[in-house]
Amino acid sequence: MSGAERRSIGIGMVGYAFMGMAHSQGWRNARSFFDPALTPRLVALGGRNRAAAEELARRFDWGAVETDWRELVARDDVELVDICTPGDTHAEIAVAALQAGKHVLCEKPLANSVAEAEAMAAAAETAAAAGVRSMVGFTYRRVPAVALARKLVAEGRIGQVRQVRAEYLQDWLSDADAPMSWRLEKDRAGSGALGDIGAHAVDLTQFITGLPVTGVSGLTDTFVPERPLADGSGTGRVTVDDSAVFLARLAGGAPATFTATRFATGRKNALRIEISGSEGALAFDLEDMNALHLYEDAVPSRTRGFTRILVTEPDHPYVSAWWPPGHMLGYEHGFSHQAADLLTAIDAGQDPAPSFADGLAVQRVLAAVEASAAAGSAWTTVDTTPVAPAGETVPNREPEAAR
Amino acid sequence: MSGAERRSIGIGMVGYAFMGMAHSQGWRNARSFFDPALTPRLVALGGRNRAAAEELARRFDWGAVETDWRELVARDDVELVDICTPGDTHAEIAVAALQAGKHVLCEKPLANSVAEAEAMAAAAETAAAAGVRSMVGFTYRRVPAVALARKLVAEGRIGQVRQVRAEYLQDWLSDADAPMSWRLEKDRAGSGALGDIGAHAVDLTQFITGLPVTGVSGLTDTFVPERPLADGSGTGRVTVDDSAVFLARLAGGAPATFTATRFATGRKNALRIEISGSEGALAFDLEDMNALHLYEDAVPSRTRGFTRILVTEPDHPYVSAWWPPGHMLGYEHGFSHQAADLLTAIDAGQDPAPSFADGLAVQRVLAAVEASAAAGSAWTTVDTTPVAPAGETVPNREPEAAR
Amino acid sequence: MSGAERRSIGIGMVGYAFMGMAHSQGWRNARSFFDPALTPRLVALGGRNRAAAEELARRFDWGAVETDWRELVARDDVELVDICTPGDTHAEIAVAALQAGKHVLCEKPLANSVAEAEAMAAAAETAAAAGVRSMVGFTYRRVPAVALARKLVAEGRIGQVRQVRAEYLQDWLSDADAPMSWRLEKDRAGSGALGDIGAHAVDLTQFITGLPVTGVSGLTDTFVPERPLADGSGTGRVTVDDSAVFLARLAGGAPATFTATRFATGRKNALRIEISGSEGALAFDLEDMNALHLYEDAVPSRTRGFTRILVTEPDHPYVSAWWPPGHMLGYEHGFSHQAADLLTAIDAGQDPAPSFADGLAVQRVLAAVEASAAAGSAWTTVDTTPVAPAGETVPNREPEAAR
Amino acid sequence: MSGAERRSIGIGMVGYAFMGMAHSQGWRNARSFFDPALTPRLVALGGRNRAAAEELARRFDWGAVETDWRELVARDDVELVDICTPGDTHAEIAVAALQAGKHVLCEKPLANSVAEAEAMAAAAETAAAAGVRSMVGFTYRRVPAVALARKLVAEGRIGQVRQVRAEYLQDWLSDADAPMSWRLEKDRAGSGALGDIGAHAVDLTQFITGLPVTGVSGLTDTFVPERPLADGSGTGRVTVDDSAVFLARLAGGAPATFTATRFATGRKNALRIEISGSEGALAFDLEDMNALHLYEDAVPSRTRGFTRILVTEPDHPYVSAWWPPGHMLGYEHGFSHQAADLLTAIDAGQDPAPSFADGLAVQRVLAAVEASAAAGSAWTTVDTTPVAPAGETVPNREPEAAR
Repeated sequence: MSGAERRSIGIGMVGYAFMGMAHSQGWRNARSFFDPALTPRLVALGGRNRAAAEELARRFDWGAVETDWRELVARDDVELVDICTPGDTHAEIAVAALQAGKHVLCEKPLANSVAEAEAMAAAAETAAAAGVRSMVGFTYRRVPAVALARKLVAEGRIGQVRQVRAEYLQDWLSDADAPMSWRLEKDRAGSGALGDIGAHAVDLTQFITGLPVTGVSGLTDTFVPERPLADGSGTGRVTVDDSAVFLARLAGGAPATFTATRFATGRKNALRIEISGSEGALAFDLEDMNALHLYEDAVPSRTRGFTRILVTEPDHPYVSAWWPPGHMLGYEHGFSHQAADLLTAIDAGQDPAPSFADGLAVQRVLAAVEASAAAGSAWTTVDTTPVAPAGETVPNREPEAAR
Repeated sequence: MSGAERRSIGIGMVGYAFMGMAHSQGWRNARSFFDPALTPRLVALGGRNRAAAEELARRFDWGAVETDWRELVARDDVELVDICTPGDTHAEIAVAALQAGKHVLCEKPLANSVAEAEAMAAAAETAAAAGVRSMVGFTYRRVPAVALARKLVAEGRIGQVRQVRAEYLQDWLSDADAPMSWRLEKDRAGSGALGDIGAHAVDLTQFITGLPVTGVSGLTDTFVPERPLADGSGTGRVTVDDSAVFLARLAGGAPATFTATRFATGRKNALRIEISGSEGALAFDLEDMNALHLYEDAVPSRTRGFTRILVTEPDHPYVSAWWPPGHMLGYEHGFSHQAADLLTAIDAGQDPAPSFADGLAVQRVLAAVEASAAAGSAWTTVDTTPVAPAGETVPNREPEAAR
Repeated sequence: MSGAERRSIGIGMVGYAFMGMAHSQGWRNARSFFDPALTPRLVALGGRNRAAAEELARRFDWGAVETDWRELVARDDVELVDICTPGDTHAEIAVAALQAGKHVLCEKPLANSVAEAEAMAAAAETAAAAGVRSMVGFTYRRVPAVALARKLVAEGRIGQVRQVRAEYLQDWLSDADAPMSWRLEKDRAGSGALGDIGAHAVDLTQFITGLPVTGVSGLTDTFVPERPLADGSGTGRVTVDDSAVFLARLAGGAPATFTATRFATGRKNALRIEISGSEGALAFDLEDMNALHLYEDAVPSRTRGFTRILVTEPDHPYVSAWWPPGHMLGYEHGFSHQAADLLTAIDAGQDPAPSFADGLAVQRVLAAVEASAAAGSAWTTVDTTPVAPAGETVPNREPEAAR
Repeated sequence: MSGAERRSIGIGMVGYAFMGMAHSQGWRNARSFFDPALTPRLVALGGRNRAAAEELARRFDWGAVETDWRELVARDDVELVDICTPGDTHAEIAVAALQAGKHVLCEKPLANSVAEAEAMAAAAETAAAAGVRSMVGFTYRRVPAVALARKLVAEGRIGQVRQVRAEYLQDWLSDADAPMSWRLEKDRAGSGALGDIGAHAVDLTQFITGLPVTGVSGLTDTFVPERPLADGSGTGRVTVDDSAVFLARLAGGAPATFTATRFATGRKNALRIEISGSEGALAFDLEDMNALHLYEDAVPSRTRGFTRILVTEPDHPYVSAWWPPGHMLGYEHGFSHQAADLLTAIDAGQDPAPSFADGLAVQRVLAAVEASAAAGSAWTTVDTTPVAPAGETVPNREPEAAR
């Protein structure tokens, strides 16, 4: 099939910082390495800071820059809106885009509050009925080792899930002199380590085990409550958690422990999960992201142990699109996998995962942790009420080339 | 100094199973490798099963066997009673021995209940006033890497302790067909994973950080409530926890997470602790027991990372008594260090650590975890009331050779 | 500076397979992440198989396809020729391109024979005098951990280099039923494991230590001399080595050991090097490519050990162009670093490294290993005679925008 | 069976330093943990330095001290002579002991020269005919993970042995100011790293693979040729190798690489071996001595990788005599296994392994390495001529209790 004949879809992305760069790379690599039936066109990049937006646009060949996200959403050539802004703007942009009949990819956490997330999930339900797709950006699901872990659990390789230990350890705030940022303000960021990285630990647990978190008991801490302002004009108050630790139960009763902290000195990006099953176990660490460790009771005890699977073989998820066996993938590759999967789902007329409902489920766990922490670690049930579709109608959407 | 001129002390040990063998090796090696000023004589071994006791006595040259522990305690040539029996007998034997003016080494956990532990701690207080020493057997304190960790924390190498993650993972009950044993009966064992291995995780945390646990929120589980009886005559009911997970606060407020489980498939003896400090971090894993991992913010970022210290150098705790650098120590060496330290303390007329009060402190944490778990994970304060000396008088004790 | 005003350079690449894809990604990412002053334009892709070349061109937006490399070299808009073909064609293309005044990037190994490599190095010398640049693609030099290792050695952090152990372990031929391929034919591939991966081990050693290999004693093996043809029509004869092991001396006398094998069962891409110095040591493994291990005698013995440096900090080589600390890079990133460095060198009017002379130096080591192996492992001195510039004149070349 | 009724054997040990202590512990633990049918009695300890010998005797309950080894050998109650002295005395003591009809355990390396080793092997042959047993102390064969490795190779679990990488890395001489010692004098020590630790690497390779080394090409180095005398009186000349590296072929043709060095900065006791087979691989590192890594092609590629077997299960070699699963063994345990196996062999009237012939085989490899290094790394065939029994008659020997 020549390029000219291929179906394509116009992408409009809002945001130009860390996530904007990661998503730009994701769209581009999805096309080059996965060759999806639906080819992404980088139509427009939105950002209030025009200079910054233009700089990113220049580097990644975005076709245009818009300084008002509403303009971007309104563009006819934008068929998919990719939201890479801070969490306090997710709901407004996403709901508007969905209502405009645009597919939406929204960075995690889905929103800063359960109410916002519920509104988004409702809008996504409504949109889905009209063929408009939505997805939340838990990219770590698409690390090949993680995707393999889920498959192995689903195939029963470790038996019944008995116990989970999940943690996401970083240390970039460990230095008490590190300056204030929007990520430390509750109004902008929603929460601290809990929402930023704890969200990943929760989603990963739910994704790999297939079991939702049903209740929690939590403890949150702000170790450094006051920090210097970046401009040197004084100090600012940290209004989010530096660390959140919690106990949980998964559906069916399995106990789990969670740690999310930006104060784990020496740990840079250690998203770790270990799942103990009735017939085996799985362990993963994002700081060694090309490996998955598998233990199986079925192996005779004399040669049994954790096997370090280098997840770089052609029969591992996503790998065949990349390099020969033994050639490592990195952080950014998950964004390419996410983009490729989303394009495939849109083309196939299917709802992609993780859905906004999945994002809401995580949000509700985080909210329960905060509620528990505020109530002296009291056991707090996680709300699992399904969200009804929002009332408003969404225009039907088919991929451009299909029309 | 020739052997004849050295001071010595008569040891009477109760118990002949796993711990009896480990302690026998400990006493013997303490003498040969540490050459303590006070030499242990293996005077008598107590055990209700005479054949089993005689077998161990033959192998380790114990001078005599007693089938009634009261006889053993009463022997004039027994100056120190070493208690290696199941937890339900600790209190009775220890209190009797202390009241008889015998030094006591008691295996952990100190007792099966807080009440018993309190009685023992009170008896120890009374005895200490008369020069009679007591110690509880948290041997992992004496793994060189652990002892080094405590020193480094005390020296301020990682700054202020901010956060702790401790876990003790085993999997020997993961197989649902593993038979019943006394360790699974609440009456005999007191608790399950919590008291057996969780006790180690709690003691290690308190030992390394120097900070007591002040409150907890816990969750306990019995995954396999019914197990086949060893004699094939049916099934028995498991009345202890298979797993205990809990959140905690240390004095000063640092949050900590604990996991103790016998269902961590694939983990055989993974007592792990990581301490995040304001200026560095320490990590240890008993499955790699000769190593300690240290991270220090003071190192410039370009070459900073966790350093894997092989704790086998002559300037590391306990190491110079053994082999040249790089020669590994194993599980049993902690028992030799424990024996050597206890002999040194007795000879110096000092109270050794960990004391019965330390053992009680651990017991109270475990009790708080059980109380919290029973109360829906409600936050539960740990009792830290000091124990008053028990009333009864204890005969003065000086090492034999010193009299 | 807007995109329109930036200087640019037209790239013509020959080859469309594994390396063609890796280089395409390298050029593209160099532009997006490193924003070099000289921007690469993907002008033309050369390949004899038009369909395959067009497929890659479509995916990576190459402007045109040429089926004859001579046409590609002759294009006015091609200012740099990137050679990604098998080794038997390197010399002809590279010399022609240099003589046509085009900068050249040539994949490793530089050539299939020392004679070819010498001709190429001579041509490069001549070209350099006219401002035409050349570089050989030892991309592993540009893995951040490797680049850091070289810096640390140069700074004296491990003292004088005393001893080196280098190995490159793969296992993709371990299965005796794996089919024949051009890589197993001496005519096409030059050598087997020796030239394909041993070349990397030699270059890495010379790069990190700064010391050339001066002599060798080698042993080569072909474990599976006959393999099925891919088309099922019978078997073919393997005419290259499956494994090459050799002893070496570096300038100054330091001994080194090398292993290059495609039969290290279970090892997928383990390029490992450990350098023992008089005051420390460095260790690296490509299967854990974001880490460098450093040992320093200067640290007091009590806390000394190998430090695992996660080479993902902004002050590490190349890292600041990518993601925040702790976010892993993968295999392909070295190609981006290579492209960025080459563009910078061309723009600055400087000769980039590794030069064709560096490629020749590696080739001469490989030839010495083969000679030694053929002579019963006799010690074989490595030729280090400098190459004189080739006679032919090369047209002057300045970057287009600078003209 | 009571202690009084058990058969026993009188041990006379020569040497009181590092090895003397390790062997003392070995004899004692063999009795206590393995309960061999033939019980060792620690009859006499020989050492020219009476005070040092008496000190060790006191600590380990040796019955007597002899300052002349001839007296020790001549004692009626000494039935087995255990030689723990420097290598230059091995031959004389061992031959005398064998000729006196005493069983002999001799520390490695068997001797300082091939000629001595041949004489010893001949004497051992003669003695064996008369029921007198001999064994050389390659204790690492009896690390459980190593013993398991040999079994797995013998069972064909990794197929045919294709390639071996063995190294023994230490760094205790890396400091150029470390003083002279007898280990650095050729007259006393025979060789340096080669004989001291290279001998272990060679024996381990031959033991695990079952294949003798048939030829070598070597390179030896003395990095620090002059060192301060320990008494401060000046400097002494180092007359042994600091490092020896060599290529080798095993019977059948498999290539192997060996490194033995005391200058691998940061490596304390890293005896490592990796065996690549046609259907799998095995890897071991003495610095992680309770683990064995196994890779098997038979596992489907999706979950294949190196399995880290924690060799602490009851069905692993030697383990059931010690502690429950997951409890680590250390360096010294190999000495207990060696003693237990030797006692069992003597009692069973069988020749134990490794024999003096095995020790001689290692010696001949070391000699070939030295010859090769002296001849410019020329390929050097290893002598494998069998040794004829020595002429002299040896008195028959049966265990005391059996007489």
